[in-house]
Amino acid sequence: MARAIQLAWRGRYSTHPNPRVGCVIARGDLVLGEGWHERAGEAHAEVRALSQAGPDARGATAYVTLEPCSHFGRTPPCSRALIDAGVARVVVASEDPNPTVSGRGLQQLRDAGIRVKDGVLREEAAKLNPGFLKRMRSGRPWVRLKIASSLDGRTAMASGESKWITGAESRSDVQRLRAMSDAILTGVNTVLVDDPSLTVRRNELGNIGQATEPSRQPLRLIADRDARTPPTAKILQGGDVHLFCSEEALSTGPAQDLSALGVTLNGVGWQDSGVNLGQLLDRLGELGVNELLVEAGPTLAGGFIVEGLVDELWLYQAPIFLGSEGRPTARLPFNDMCEKIEWLVTDRRQLGVDTRLILTPKVLAPNLSAVD
Amino acid sequence: MARAIQLAWRGRYSTHPNPRVGCVIARGDLVLGEGWHERAGEAHAEVRALSQAGPDARGATAYVTLEPCSHFGRTPPCSRALIDAGVARVVVASEDPNPTVSGRGLQQLRDAGIRVKDGVLREEAAKLNPGFLKRMRSGRPWVRLKIASSLDGRTAMASGESKWITGAESRSDVQRLRAMSDAILTGVNTVLVDDPSLTVRRNELGNIGQATEPSRQPLRLIADRDARTPPTAKILQGGDVHLFCSEEALSTGPAQDLSALGVTLNGVGWQDSGVNLGQLLDRLGELGVNELLVEAGPTLAGGFIVEGLVDELWLYQAPIFLGSEGRPTARLPFNDMCEKIEWLVTDRRQLGVDTRLILTPKVLAPNLSAVD
Repeated sequence: MARAIQLAWRGRYSTHPNPRVGCVIARGDLVLGEGWHERAGEAHAEVRALSQAGPDARGATAYVTLEPCSHFGRTPPCSRALIDAGVARVVVASEDPNPTVSGRGLQQLRDAGIRVKDGVLREEAAKLNPGFLKRMRSGRPWVRLKIASSLDGRTAMASGESKWITGAESRSDVQRLRAMSDAILTGVNTVLVDDPSLTVRRNELGNIGQATEPSRQPLRLIADRDARTPPTAKILQGGDVHLFCSEEALSTGPAQDLSALGVTLNGVGWQDSGVNLGQLLDRLGELGVNELLVEAGPTLAGGFIVEGLVDELWLYQAPIFLGSEGRPTARLPFNDMCEKIEWLVTDRRQLGVDTRLILTPKVLAPNLSAVD
Repeated sequence: MARAIQLAWRGRYSTHPNPRVGCVIARGDLVLGEGWHERAGEAHAEVRALSQAGPDARGATAYVTLEPCSHFGRTPPCSRALIDAGVARVVVASEDPNPTVSGRGLQQLRDAGIRVKDGVLREEAAKLNPGFLKRMRSGRPWVRLKIASSLDGRTAMASGESKWITGAESRSDVQRLRAMSDAILTGVNTVLVDDPSLTVRRNELGNIGQATEPSRQPLRLIADRDARTPPTAKILQGGDVHLFCSEEALSTGPAQDLSALGVTLNGVGWQDSGVNLGQLLDRLGELGVNELLVEAGPTLAGGFIVEGLVDELWLYQAPIFLGSEGRPTARLPFNDMCEKIEWLVTDRRQLGVDTRLILTPKVLAPNLSAVD
């Protein structure tokens, strides 16, 4: 199963909106076939592994990181393929999280006389698909907030100048983070000040090992109440862009101009503090976004944090001080110590001279916080 | 020599104002005697090691982390002791940094027919005594700035509330940092807001291994132009306190009241930005302060940084966000990216859930910055 999980990771930049899945067909210690899902619409992991194993699959064991599908989608059901190949035993890491289909694939296998074992390395396998699992369960994507800051907690000078705070290794890491994401969200102020493209650039992606090449750009999303995004903005070039504006702005000239350029307009609620993030995330779930990356200024970033909507904070810290006039890490208007946000450090590593921390909100992990 | 350096570290909390020194007497691989300097006025490392070796020292090799002293101070010269014991060879890590005595101890040994080798593990040995070496060369102490902050770069709420940002492991580490220091400097605003004692508390010091127990409290220093420190302040209890005020404030009632309580008054220059730090450091050098720890608010901390007077920044970061209204890491009124301060990370470790970084200014280490 560990090998199947390893194979599944090869699809980390390419399977969306499908989950990352790996499969190994083995008899004892002898591996007969290996497969992983590469791209939506292409063969599933089980089919690829069975095809490699050929007639040897008869009587063998299949290790699959996710419950085999039992329905006709863009490809025939994998449960059927396993039955037809005559495998004797199927070991699965986790059941399908979609409540309407969960367990059906396993039942089909059992009905065909195959021995089924479930829950092997379940937690490790779950890390493959945090977004797919969350979207199936809650209808919303997994939210990663990325912040690049100095050690004194500043993301830019007061003027907005921010090139470059972090080093080349960190920026290449951000490229891989973008490539893993289904969509990248920013705010119109960032568009106006920085004019970022928010694309994945293959030549900056670094070594992706045996992973399948990214097959498309992530969706680009702009929170922009009054449709102020300039038609010349770099973010509008080279891929699908969704604009989240107010219902009132939908019919205005600027919005219609952007629509004519191919931008998809979405009317959502707005309040003083900004866009209604709950509505926005629901809409992204409907669009099939599993993993959302937020690369935004202090206000939008602060909104996600204050509303408890961040699943992971990826904080890149450069060993510099930008000074006390610079822009804050996130706009969080706290007055009292008890309002502070507590994080769990789940990963801490060095990237060139920078430090990258992956943090999760402490309240969301009661088991871990109990040992603190 | 590595063993001698290890022994010297045992004096890290206790030798001031003397340097930390270790000595091993050996014949081939056989260690005959070991010693380290424990406290000023007590036996030097060489004498202790020779005493342990006894008559076996004749014909042996002495490894010493610092050039043996050649003059009568509070104890007789160690060069004489090595000659009298009949050692055949002396291996030294570094010469005495004091230009008026440097090399004399080694010359005395050579004159007595002893083979001398110099410069073995010189850089490792230099780390034992950054303050002693700097003070001998420049007349000023080694300056360590300690800052405890949140990941969003805040050291307190706007109200000044700051208990506790970092965890117990970090606070115990700060106790050990204080114990290593000859003096601790803070500003009067910190005294007025936090009322810290800035003492070393043995029960919070944690495990100090084989190190000699700290024998006294570090000097406490207050930058306080108008002598506003309240006579009831905790910092005035339990040890020597120096106040650095303006020349004009020296003769005022509040200053004289503090003097009557045993506080030593020092008149130094002040400008709009605060105390004249160069004058202050010169005065501390005269007082025999090798290693100064600055535990101050954003203004005093910022002054040391802006003037390039920080030798090491010890940054303790807790995995929390205190919000964008909180007090900054250091007051640094930069407008342009090119004003940014760049640091080299010389040590990065986890303390409980916190991270401790030891940083040195990049400009002071041209050899290292060249490979960046």
